[in-house]
Amino acid sequence: LVAARPEGKVRESDFLFVDSPIPEPRQGEFLVKVMFLSVAPVLRRHLMGKSENLPPLNTGEVMRGRGVGRVIVSHHPEFAQGDIVQGKFGWQEYAISAASPEDMVHKVLQRKLPFSTSLGVLGPTGFASYLALNDIGQPRPGDAIVVSRASSGVGSNVGQIARILGCSPVLGIAGSRRKCRFMVENLGYDAAINYRQEDLGRRLDELCPDGVDIYFDNVGGQTLDTVLARIKPRGRIILCERMSDRDREDPRGIRNYGVIGNRQARMEGFNIYQHESDFHRAEAQLTEWLSSGKMRYLEDRLEGIEMMPKALLRLFQGKNLGKQLVRVDPEAE
Amino acid sequence: LVAARPEGKVRESDFLFVDSPIPEPRQGEFLVKVMFLSVAPVLRRHLMGKSENLPPLNTGEVMRGRGVGRVIVSHHPEFAQGDIVQGKFGWQEYAISAASPEDMVHKVLQRKLPFSTSLGVLGPTGFASYLALNDIGQPRPGDAIVVSRASSGVGSNVGQIARILGCSPVLGIAGSRRKCRFMVENLGYDAAINYRQEDLGRRLDELCPDGVDIYFDNVGGQTLDTVLARIKPRGRIILCERMSDRDREDPRGIRNYGVIGNRQARMEGFNIYQHESDFHRAEAQLTEWLSSGKMRYLEDRLEGIEMMPKALLRLFQGKNLGKQLVRVDPEAE
Repeated sequence: LVAARPEGKVRESDFLFVDSPIPEPRQGEFLVKVMFLSVAPVLRRHLMGKSENLPPLNTGEVMRGRGVGRVIVSHHPEFAQGDIVQGKFGWQEYAISAASPEDMVHKVLQRKLPFSTSLGVLGPTGFASYLALNDIGQPRPGDAIVVSRASSGVGSNVGQIARILGCSPVLGIAGSRRKCRFMVENLGYDAAINYRQEDLGRRLDELCPDGVDIYFDNVGGQTLDTVLARIKPRGRIILCERMSDRDREDPRGIRNYGVIGNRQARMEGFNIYQHESDFHRAEAQLTEWLSSGKMRYLEDRLEGIEMMPKALLRLFQGKNLGKQLVRVDPEAE
Repeated sequence: LVAARPEGKVRESDFLFVDSPIPEPRQGEFLVKVMFLSVAPVLRRHLMGKSENLPPLNTGEVMRGRGVGRVIVSHHPEFAQGDIVQGKFGWQEYAISAASPEDMVHKVLQRKLPFSTSLGVLGPTGFASYLALNDIGQPRPGDAIVVSRASSGVGSNVGQIARILGCSPVLGIAGSRRKCRFMVENLGYDAAINYRQEDLGRRLDELCPDGVDIYFDNVGGQTLDTVLARIKPRGRIILCERMSDRDREDPRGIRNYGVIGNRQARMEGFNIYQHESDFHRAEAQLTEWLSSGKMRYLEDRLEGIEMMPKALLRLFQGKNLGKQLVRVDPEAE
């Protein structure tokens, strides 16, 4: 449960674990035994009471979050015992759902890859990576692309997809030497920039002296501003909403936005839930690339629901490599 | 001629007038007797040596600028004596051109409206207004639209076109009571906001409490930031390059850019010279609206080439109502 609203940084003490009986589904509901739960930066906005499209989350309520699990009892006509479902089940080992729109429940049909992938590369994270890059970025072979938070769930997909589509160079920004090495060795980035140790602008000038065609932004702020100054005419800047913890107002502001006008560039936001009709297209393409080995998926797993606060904190501490998950059911694979 | 590079504000002393013999066109060139010259904010960038796509303009060179005139001698196969031509002829009463790409010469074919319109509503200014609003803004009936610098050449067109296309409300921002009254009485704006005397944010909250679908930005800075905070989901923000004097870096920066991500909005720059193939479409539609009286064109004319520096200064002093022109040939109509 939510125990307190964080002031600034999220703390483990903002959460409280309670035991309660497994609920019984009523007519029109089903009961899910949760296998995996995921965390995403947007959860901090919920915790702070700043949800964009939902009522504010209050203390004493079940913390929001997305999971995948198996239907164990169903009184809902469209779901049967044994179905694998993915949705916003909250931080719970067992969850009741009526498949209402805000739960965003989808059945997981693929059986080739572990079900946990439906929280990452074969779920909203992966679909957002694929669809935002394609629909807004419109990548062409030879396009210079820069990705921030490049070893994260979204970043690790975007870098790989950009490489498959022929972008060059594919440059990633991250905050540690470990991540940077990982990105080049495992994710196919042509080069990685450690923004904590290197001058981002100078490195970009070396690595893509003609400028940047596509910037996939997961951080905003000064990083966005530095890349903006180097955007090419008709460049595309993708702001990927769901993956961002960006607050409404950035006190420093971005100063180089004028280049969007001067260079006929485009900066556009992406909300995966406006694109549900495209999920099958994304899933089919990603499954093909994953099955054929062209693309890898990366998970950072912790064990046990009591690790959820720590899992969330890891995002903001920059510790995770790949999609941060918690295995809630020790028998899940 | 350019006499000095302005430091900050443009001064009349940055220019120098000289008399020289009327030149003779060589093979492949023609001589134009200029009727009208126009000024635009982008000229300040040229003066400061910050041209985007051209070599820097140096002192001692003819000041750049667009004009319309009559061909009086031609040794160019595609232009004949008597043709009316529009192009970048510079601040001159007589100009030689080889119709090279950088001169951007076009023949003026219409005879229904004064030739001066080819520097305004039937030239790049008008075409940019129409094409940027349609192509980036994608206006639908009932869309709330806000236009800054709303009584300017571009602004006066955009407001009228938005109204014809059914946008509602059509709101304009300007910097004087005179302009605001003019916009509502003559340009079909539903309301005008005087940013010098009113709180822009509060007025927008009153006039379009549900937010803004389209913002046609001609100023950037704090105005852009204030409108951004009120942009609706899937809203469109048009940065109209050619009409802007915006410098590369805005030291305050825009702080609300995060809404572009959070609300799946789009901010896009427009450069009219990437859209020359659409000029005929724009010209046909605008001529129809102008001829039928649905739309008006507004010019602010000064007399005589020696008024050019003053005409340019008027833009930055906010004095012009409509397209700022200078009639260079006293016999032109």
